[in-house]
Amino acid sequence: MSNHQISEIKLQEYYKVSLELVKQCGPLFLEGFLKPKTDYEVKSAFYDLVTVYDQQIEATLTAGLLKAFPESRIIGEEALDGSLDQAELTDDPTWIIDPIDGTNNFVRKIPHCCISVGLAINKELVAGIIYNPATNELYSSLKGQGAFLNDQPISVASKVVTIQQAVVGYEISLIVVAKGRDQNVKRLFKLGSNATAIRSLGSAALTLCYIATGRCDAYHVENLKPWDLAAGAIILTEAGGRIYHTSGGKFEVMQPDCVCACTEELAQNVIQLIKEADRITEYTFQ
Amino acid sequence: MSNHQISEIKLQEYYKVSLELVKQCGPLFLEGFLKPKTDYEVKSAFYDLVTVYDQQIEATLTAGLLKAFPESRIIGEEALDGSLDQAELTDDPTWIIDPIDGTNNFVRKIPHCCISVGLAINKELVAGIIYNPATNELYSSLKGQGAFLNDQPISVASKVVTIQQAVVGYEISLIVVAKGRDQNVKRLFKLGSNATAIRSLGSAALTLCYIATGRCDAYHVENLKPWDLAAGAIILTEAGGRIYHTSGGKFEVMQPDCVCACTEELAQNVIQLIKEADRITEYTFQ
Repeated sequence: MSNHQISEIKLQEYYKVSLELVKQCGPLFLEGFLKPKTDYEVKSAFYDLVTVYDQQIEATLTAGLLKAFPESRIIGEEALDGSLDQAELTDDPTWIIDPIDGTNNFVRKIPHCCISVGLAINKELVAGIIYNPATNELYSSLKGQGAFLNDQPISVASKVVTIQQAVVGYEISLIVVAKGRDQNVKRLFKLGSNATAIRSLGSAALTLCYIATGRCDAYHVENLKPWDLAAGAIILTEAGGRIYHTSGGKFEVMQPDCVCACTEELAQNVIQLIKEADRITEYTFQ
Repeated sequence: MSNHQISEIKLQEYYKVSLELVKQCGPLFLEGFLKPKTDYEVKSAFYDLVTVYDQQIEATLTAGLLKAFPESRIIGEEALDGSLDQAELTDDPTWIIDPIDGTNNFVRKIPHCCISVGLAINKELVAGIIYNPATNELYSSLKGQGAFLNDQPISVASKVVTIQQAVVGYEISLIVVAKGRDQNVKRLFKLGSNATAIRSLGSAALTLCYIATGRCDAYHVENLKPWDLAAGAIILTEAGGRIYHTSGGKFEVMQPDCVCACTEELAQNVIQLIKEADRITEYTFQ
């Protein structure tokens, strides 16, 4: 695999075309979001509906991006049918796409869900777009150029350095899955007992944007997919935030376990608390 | 204390005047919400700012309501300085006021916070108004007349009867307080291991409205104040939802521990799961 030299002009073109394509998907996203969904007891009916919009939005994005940039590749939720087995990140320009992040919110008309598109070149994230049509919030970022909310520059703003002053995002819903359940409970117990507040908002992509704008300070999540975090990771770092692998090592988009924070100090504090939480084996409740 | 006979016309007047007053507080609420708050490291500076808006909004509401209805009383967060010691609910028409519910969201510009005003007469909730100026969502309800979002009728919509299909609200942030921490962790573990999703949104009042509109299905919270739940309780029940004391007994606004749900069956399911959770004493993590 060759290491690609990409000019600034080409990068700008990737950014502008993808931004325009994501915006174009807004009305379709909103149509699905606003659609009456009353068969709450029939769970499968929900997800059939979501799947229709998931597929249509991803198909629109994929077709548009490959037409404009035939040299690029796609890693997408629908394309891979949720399985990462066939996914391989090469040095080629690669769009990492989640057509609807925050599916449960989308289904329930909770206005906190989004389209997420990240771009990696030479295996490094260089651009990200996250669009919530329900609130008309469009986050974007291009490497070295900063991060933006509806074209206005954003930065992490928060200078919080310890968990005691932090508003922390944590997807409690992950404990519904047996795998990692106990680990999540322990970590949540440790972080939640110390933080100012915990928020479970149901969209990893938007929580990263929330740190990028100073609405939250930290986030920890594991067992997600690359498309849940790709765009958010570059938006966050371009806004001045930090993202690490949970262990404290470098964040790799294809292994999307992470600790995110507004400052280096807070990131290290959270990584440390997670290590402490993992050491708990027995607990006597009071 | 006499039991008051209130005419339909008088009730309508209470409703209309309070609705108008709450709307009038929207711009002031928004001014505080949008204000730049960059001293994230100085926690006290935050809360000084919140207090200013809390006090101004409550003063506006209190003055307006007592002028229009001199026969009424006020139970409010600011008036009582957060302490319930002096508060007594009589048979008199009583406004139960939270000028800003979701304080941490308000401070952090997370657009999920609100003004909440409930009305009790003869110790029974008869009207409720919850207004989120950041999203322009105004929920309201008058006993026997139904519940409304921006003047459109709403109902719980969701027919979910078991936790496995439910999106459940739970304020994990409560575990930062030592009192009740272990109990909250156990209950969260039990509910979260079974639910479709858990949401920690940071406003009890709005989560009750979310059940009233079918965005969520259930909610459990304890150790809150009457003004956190008064308006939401009547909006929820008028939308067809259920609210009980955690024990399964009748919900009393002055003892605001509760289980809320879209259906009777789901409410009973959650009450049962909480009883099971409370029986856990030791746990060996896997």
